[in-house]
Amino acid sequence: MKVKIRKAKKSDFESVLNLIVELAKFEKLDPPDEKAKKRLYKDTFGKRLSFRILVAQADNEIIGYAFYFFTYSSFLSRKTLYLEDIFITQSKRNLGAGKLFMRRLVKIAKKQKCGRMEWAVLDWNKNAIEFYDKLGAKQLKDWIYYRINFH
Amino acid sequence: MKVKIRKAKKSDFESVLNLIVELAKFEKLDPPDEKAKKRLYKDTFGKRLSFRILVAQADNEIIGYAFYFFTYSSFLSRKTLYLEDIFITQSKRNLGAGKLFMRRLVKIAKKQKCGRMEWAVLDWNKNAIEFYDKLGAKQLKDWIYYRINFH
Repeated sequence: MKVKIRKAKKSDFESVLNLIVELAKFEKLDPPDEKAKKRLYKDTFGKRLSFRILVAQADNEIIGYAFYFFTYSSFLSRKTLYLEDIFITQSKRNLGAGKLFMRRLVKIAKKQKCGRMEWAVLDWNKNAIEFYDKLGAKQLKDWIYYRINFH
Repeated sequence: MKVKIRKAKKSDFESVLNLIVELAKFEKLDPPDEKAKKRLYKDTFGKRLSFRILVAQADNEIIGYAFYFFTYSSFLSRKTLYLEDIFITQSKRNLGAGKLFMRRLVKIAKKQKCGRMEWAVLDWNKNAIEFYDKLGAKQLKDWIYYRINFH
């Protein structure tokens, strides 16, 4: 089965939403509720594009998605490509979609003159960690991340 | 000495740049080089605003800055206020500028309907960690952060 990486279209929205829910369940985190799904639709196809979505297509099926946006490093004075989500549906692993996503994202980051590409992984997700280590990515071990939740 | 938090103006650029260099030295990281400083000026006052800068002013001096932008959570379908840098010059600590910055940032995040506010701190920066813990912020302990550098 040949996998193709491309920008998400409006007609992919339901498939991407299903994958987001599958990823949230896999990560044991809260998936988007109905209101959040509506906000996401608006934010995806609204005037102000604050993120981008790529999909992996195999035959006519959407088997994975990557959700990213650009942040900024004040020290480098360059954009960073931040990969918020990357997910391939459980039954379609080992088709190489993950590698294709990462290759495309690196290409996009370089084209956009980013200084870096960054992302986070849950510490129990051994398969993903092995995958990222093989890519040659470096763990940011000396930083502690903080969050305040408003909702 | 009364501290005022306000948006950075063009005339603050040199002061902010000096603080960025001071922060980089404090964090034992590479400060922006001359080319990076020029890029930063362009990106700060260019057409596409990809980040925002607040400054803390005491008397007529800029004593600190906060550098932030908005990211996005696909699960919440809400923006996140991401605080890239917050720094108060060494000689002007204990005037309350840090608290004033955080209070202002929380206000901005809520006004922008963000679901979260996030930032990172170096693990040896005990004073900052104590400050953030007191604020009631939560450490994201189960996430590993990855980076690929392009430059």
